[in-house]
Order: sequence, then structure tokens, then C-alpha cells
Amino acid sequence: MKLVCTQSDLNSNLSLVTRAVPSRPTHPVLGNVLVSGDTQTQQVRLTAFDLSLGIQTSFTAQVLQDGEVAIPAKLLNDIVSRLPEGEITLEDQAGESVNETDSDRRIVTLTSASGRYQVRGMSSEEFPELPQIAAAVAVHLPVEALVEGLRGSLFATSSDETKQVLTGVHLTMQQDSLEFAATDGHRLAVVETTHQSVGDGETDEELEEKLPALDSSRKPINEVSQLELTVPARALRELERMLAPHQPTDTIALHCEPGQIIFQGAEQRLTTRTLEGQYPPYRQLIPRQFQRQLTIDRRKLLIAVERIAVLADQKNNVVKFSIDSVNQQLSLSVEAQDVGSGQESMPAQVTGESIDIAFNVKYLIDGLKALSTSDIQIQINAANSPVILTPLGGRKMIYLLMPVQIRN
Amino acid sequence: MKLVCTQSDLNSNLSLVTRAVPSRPTHPVLGNVLVSGDTQTQQVRLTAFDLSLGIQTSFTAQVLQDGEVAIPAKLLNDIVSRLPEGEITLEDQAGESVNETDSDRRIVTLTSASGRYQVRGMSSEEFPELPQIAAAVAVHLPVEALVEGLRGSLFATSSDETKQVLTGVHLTMQQDSLEFAATDGHRLAVVETTHQSVGDGETDEELEEKLPALDSSRKPINEVSQLELTVPARALRELERMLAPHQPTDTIALHCEPGQIIFQGAEQRLTTRTLEGQYPPYRQLIPRQFQRQLTIDRRKLLIAVERIAVLADQKNNVVKFSIDSVNQQLSLSVEAQDVGSGQESMPAQVTGESIDIAFNVKYLIDGLKALSTSDIQIQINAANSPVILTPLGGRKMIYLLMPVQIRN
Repeated sequence: MKLVCTQSDLNSNLSLVTRAVPSRPTHPVLGNVLVSGDTQTQQVRLTAFDLSLGIQTSFTAQVLQDGEVAIPAKLLNDIVSRLPEGEITLEDQAGESVNETDSDRRIVTLTSASGRYQVRGMSSEEFPELPQIAAAVAVHLPVEALVEGLRGSLFATSSDETKQVLTGVHLTMQQDSLEFAATDGHRLAVVETTHQSVGDGETDEELEEKLPALDSSRKPINEVSQLELTVPARALRELERMLAPHQPTDTIALHCEPGQIIFQGAEQRLTTRTLEGQYPPYRQLIPRQFQRQLTIDRRKLLIAVERIAVLADQKNNVVKFSIDSVNQQLSLSVEAQDVGSGQESMPAQVTGESIDIAFNVKYLIDGLKALSTSDIQIQINAANSPVILTPLGGRKMIYLLMPVQIRN
Repeated sequence: MKLVCTQSDLNSNLSLVTRAVPSRPTHPVLGNVLVSGDTQTQQVRLTAFDLSLGIQTSFTAQVLQDGEVAIPAKLLNDIVSRLPEGEITLEDQAGESVNETDSDRRIVTLTSASGRYQVRGMSSEEFPELPQIAAAVAVHLPVEALVEGLRGSLFATSSDETKQVLTGVHLTMQQDSLEFAATDGHRLAVVETTHQSVGDGETDEELEEKLPALDSSRKPINEVSQLELTVPARALRELERMLAPHQPTDTIALHCEPGQIIFQGAEQRLTTRTLEGQYPPYRQLIPRQFQRQLTIDRRKLLIAVERIAVLADQKNNVVKFSIDSVNQQLSLSVEAQDVGSGQESMPAQVTGESIDIAFNVKYLIDGLKALSTSDIQIQINAANSPVILTPLGGRKMIYLLMPVQIRN
């Protein structure tokens, strides 16, 4: 293989795919990135895969000779990121093995204006193929909706690996909606986005042109009434990163089948195993009616809670809300015995009776950050039953929080 | 005590002094910052002291009632840094102790537009006094010279606490010069700066007006021909931070006596214990004559070395310099067995014969970063004797490096 490309193309694509390279590979080849050059399409494709998460990306280059080779990912990325801007020639001396008994070792030469680097690569044959989805269900989603769904749910997943399904975001696909849900057992975040289903236009075929086609026998989602799966948070964080440079209106295709999901952009593909196990029936936790409601400036509340959290952190992480319907006011207070106390007040639109209710300050801050509108609603029944936070306008999101019991 | 100040003044001064607050105080009071208000001068003074490093800073405020109180430093800093811009009232309810048996506990109340915080403070009586220097030697140095000296030496100190004096920067004060030296046993950095000695004007008295006077019986430095002491790197890093917002031409007074040094600015004071033990006689390590000399673009060399370091890191951290006097060229190369190799070349002005010589890549990078001129000189005798790097123009600095032996 021989190709000439710009340092910036190679660098930005490498830093994307290397996120799927495990830091301690279970097999040596998984520490590599697979570089493939195609003289016909004049495209270079990079692939990294840790057997659960796979990332593939393509870019245009001058490909002078077909071929593919696996190159140590971290080393290649470290060198390329430091090379000066301009053209890089990457050449793989196939067959020129370092010694006779080690015929799959290959020497890859990188030449730039500044110097020449040689790195030992491996034959591409050992590199595992990314999963393909046969008879896949596909939906198309604008980048914007996907980003919103991820931003509103990912933070609420559990980071405790023993909690299995709770370490992922639960996706529920219906004919024209996609729901993201995440809970760590203490709070729950649910975002609903809408989308077009397959066959709405030529978008699908356009997408398939650049990367190897997925099986064409897939069914549109309306033939399958509802599909649910739980996607590891780690893969979705990489998806968020992959989507960052995209236009909000770009389309991403989701192909899924039980056990596997693929996110397919025009030049990028992210594939991941899904998490096994029954996701908790979270919808039944969300109350349908509320006795009290508070409308408040989200940023003002967030800043006040962050300030008061300094004292809450000293003790039990609890902040008390005193909701005053007479004065249309919310007061926050914290008592940290032997340390100090704090109090903040702000105007709020209150309906229903006054109430004192307390929250875990960390979960509250997480939710206030994830809701992105300028005003939010807080809906409450009683001091010991679930409370929900929703944005006023903007996307459809629910953040459910259990209050903390207060002793007086 | 009662005072009104701006959030930004209190915040910036607090974040400076809290650097001297130990994270695990050996005595509870050391976890506090001492806040003192003076109605006569309308100045607030903050002090933190871990018994080795002390930082004191003053700023103008509306002081309504004299007094001083010790307040938990981290807590106060965390709250104040989150308060909105604008006025803060800080009030210490002296005598209003929380319970009878605990009469030195004081309640400090912070009030801002957003809310009210109460923190438990301590009586100032327990707070240790910052060291004063009697019969001190003093020199005055512009901030610029001090910053240059620190930037050119601090990085070469040892971070290994068992190496005692090598964890500090060695200062040698003479009548009109101050030399900074640091070595960790592998490389040596020496910076020489010039200064005015005491009595050159009214600067000294001006400085003393705002902070409590040091002993006035100090002798000018020319009565003591030379003074040497080793100052802990940790204290000097804080000094660097303290100097950052100053004008390059501002003056800092250094007052020292064996065992103690004070850096005194117009509104800030940093005091530290010095390190005990004999500093190595480093001057005798610096060769006086060289057989070879290389003049080269510093940034170009640094970038190339950083690139090639990626491969050197894989193996033994050694980069080889091939200095070619015929072609007036420097080639860098790295061989990392089983991983790869790299080579870079660049033009250089070479005098003396060609030579191959190798260096530890990390020490080389450190030196190239610390030398701040656009061109530098590399002076070499042989492949196994000390090499020195010096800036071409700019400050007086020497960076001495031992080459690494190369096997062919």
C-alpha cells in the first residue's frame, strides 16, 4: 500500500478511531489501527475495534497502491499528531519482513517534509472484521436529535460496572420516535426525539455509497413495532465525540438487531455490542399528576445550588428547598453541623401549597446542567415522592429525582 | 471585625494565599486563613502559613471594625469563588461562641446579593506568626529578573524528596548579581541576573509602608560579600504564581538570613524556610573551553526532538545527534528495536569536527523549552563529556547536560 495525504486529515481521523483501541489489548492486533487504501475510490479507511466497540472512518487521499496494514495505533497517532502540516507519504513494504520466521511483520514508512519514520506493522489478516448487521432495522436521525438525546441521558448512567444494564443508555425505537433513558438507581433521565423512518428518500442510499453496504434486506422499522436495546455509555460517549464536528442537520443511520447496533454517518461508522439483561421498567416510575409546580430560571438556580453545594459537600450532600407559594419564592438552605450554614433565595412561580423538600445536591446539579432551556418546571407531589424536572419549551426531557427525607 | 469588599478582590487574594494552606494540616489552625481588617489603613490582610511556607497579601476594602479571625481556608475559598461579582460583607461575631466550653470558636457571616453564609472560624490567637528577619540582608530585584531566574532553573530541581538540597533552587547573592542554580544530578541549569542592592533609593521604604516593617537594622549586601541559600522548589513555584500578575518592572525585595528567606512585594509577602545541607559545588562542572559549537534554531530543534521522542519513549529515551560540519547539518535519529525508527535533519552552523553524540530526550526537551531565545548554541567537547546549551542573546543561562554513551 502507498498513499499520500495531508497531516491534518490523517491526524483528525486517527484521533477519532484510536478511541476504540483498548489500552491493554487482549490480543496484540487489537492495539493497532487498520489502514486501508483503495486506488479506485481514492479513499483511505481507518478501523479500530476492541471486539465490543468499533470505529471506522474514511477520507479522501491520493492512493497510489492498494493494500491494507495494521499499525500500532498509539505510536502512529503520537507521531502523526506531531508532524508538521503538509503532505505525508505512508508506505507499507509488504513482503519485506524483518526476519524469515516472522513473515506477518511489515515495515511501514512515514515520510514528511521534516523527516522519515519507520514503524513495525502487522498483516491485516489478523485484524478482526467489524460486525455487519443482516436483516437490520434502520432509522435515520438528524445529528441534532442524537446529540440532544445523548446529552440528556448519558450523565445519568451508572459508572459502577457491577450494575450491568444501568451502565448503558436504554434506546426504544418506535416508528417515528426514539427514546433515550438512563438511570443509576437514584435518578432517571428520559429524552424523546422524533425521526424519519427508512425509505423517506435517497438519504439511505447516499450514505451506503461511501462505506461497504450493509445487508440490503433490512426491514423498515414500522414492520417491527418497537425495538429496545441498551447501549454501553462508553460507546455513546465516543459517538458524541464522533458527532461533534458534524452539521446538526446531517443524518446518521441506526442499524440494529438484538446484541448489536451500528451508527452510520457519511464517512464514519461506530459499531458496538449492546448490554444484556432486562432494563428496569422505568416508565411506571414517572407520576402522571402533580399537586405542586414551580417555574424557575434554570441558570440562576444552578449557580445558587453549586454555591450552596460547597457547604453540603462538607456533610450529607443535602440541600433543602423551602417553596413559598405566598411570596412566590424559593429558598435554598444547607446546614453543615460544626462547619457552617448557607441560605439563598430567588423568585419563582409557584402553584399549589408551600412545601419543604430536600434533594441530593449532586443529582440536582447534574439535572440542572442537562436541562438546557432558560426556564424549567419542577413538579412535586409530596416531600417523600418522586419529583420531576422538565425544560420549558425545547426538547422533550424528563429528569426524575427522589427527594431526601428531612428531619426537623 | 467587619468589612465590605468586592468579590473579585477577596477571591483573587484568597486563591493566592490558600496555596500555602496544607491539605492535611498538622494542627487544625493551619487549615485556616487569617483575615485581618484595619480601620485606620482601610486594608484587609490575608495570611496562610504551613510553618515552612507562608503567604501574606493585602488589599483595600471598607473596614468598618478592626479585628482578625481565622477561617477554614478551603471552605471560604470555595464559597467566595462561586459568589456573584459585587460587594461582600464579612463579619465576625466575636464573643458569640457556639457553646460555653468552646470560647475560641467564632461565627463568620458572609453576605452577598445572592445569599448569606455562616462559617465557623477560630480565634486568631492560635494562628502562628509569620517569621520576621532580624538583621536581614536585602536585595531588590525587578519582577522580570526574578521570573527569568525561576523559569530557567525551577524545572531542573529534583522531585525526589529524599534528595534534600536538590529539591530546591540554590541562590547565590553577590553585591550586584543573583545566581539561580538547580540540578537533579543528571543536568544542571544556572541563570545569572543582575540587581540593585539596598539603599539605592526610596523603594525600600515605600515597600515597608504597607506591610508591617521588617527589622530596620539589616545590613546592605555589600557588607556581606556573598550569601548562599537553597530555597524549596515548592515555595518558588508559589512565588512564580504570586509574581504572574505583576508588572515586569515592579520591585521585589529579598530579605534573607540563614534558614529563612522573605520575598516582599508591595502588597504581598512570601516567606519560606530554606533547605539545610551543602549544595553541590556545581560551578566546577562547567567546562571553560569547547572543541565544537553548534548554532541552531531552538524551536525547530525542539519540535523535531519532541516528535522523535515518541519513538525514544518506547525504548531507552535516547536520541542520537549526528553533527555534520561538512554539510553544516544536524541529523537526529532514534532506533527503538522491535518498534521502529525515526530520522530528522535540519541546517545548523557547525564549527569544529563532525561528531556523533547522544542525549536523554527528556532532559534535552526540558532544556530546549527553558531557553527562550530563537537561536541557541550547543557547545561540545567529546561524546562522553559535558555539553552546554546557552541562549544566543537574551538572559545569561547555562544548561549543562551529560551525553549518553552510544554503542554501535
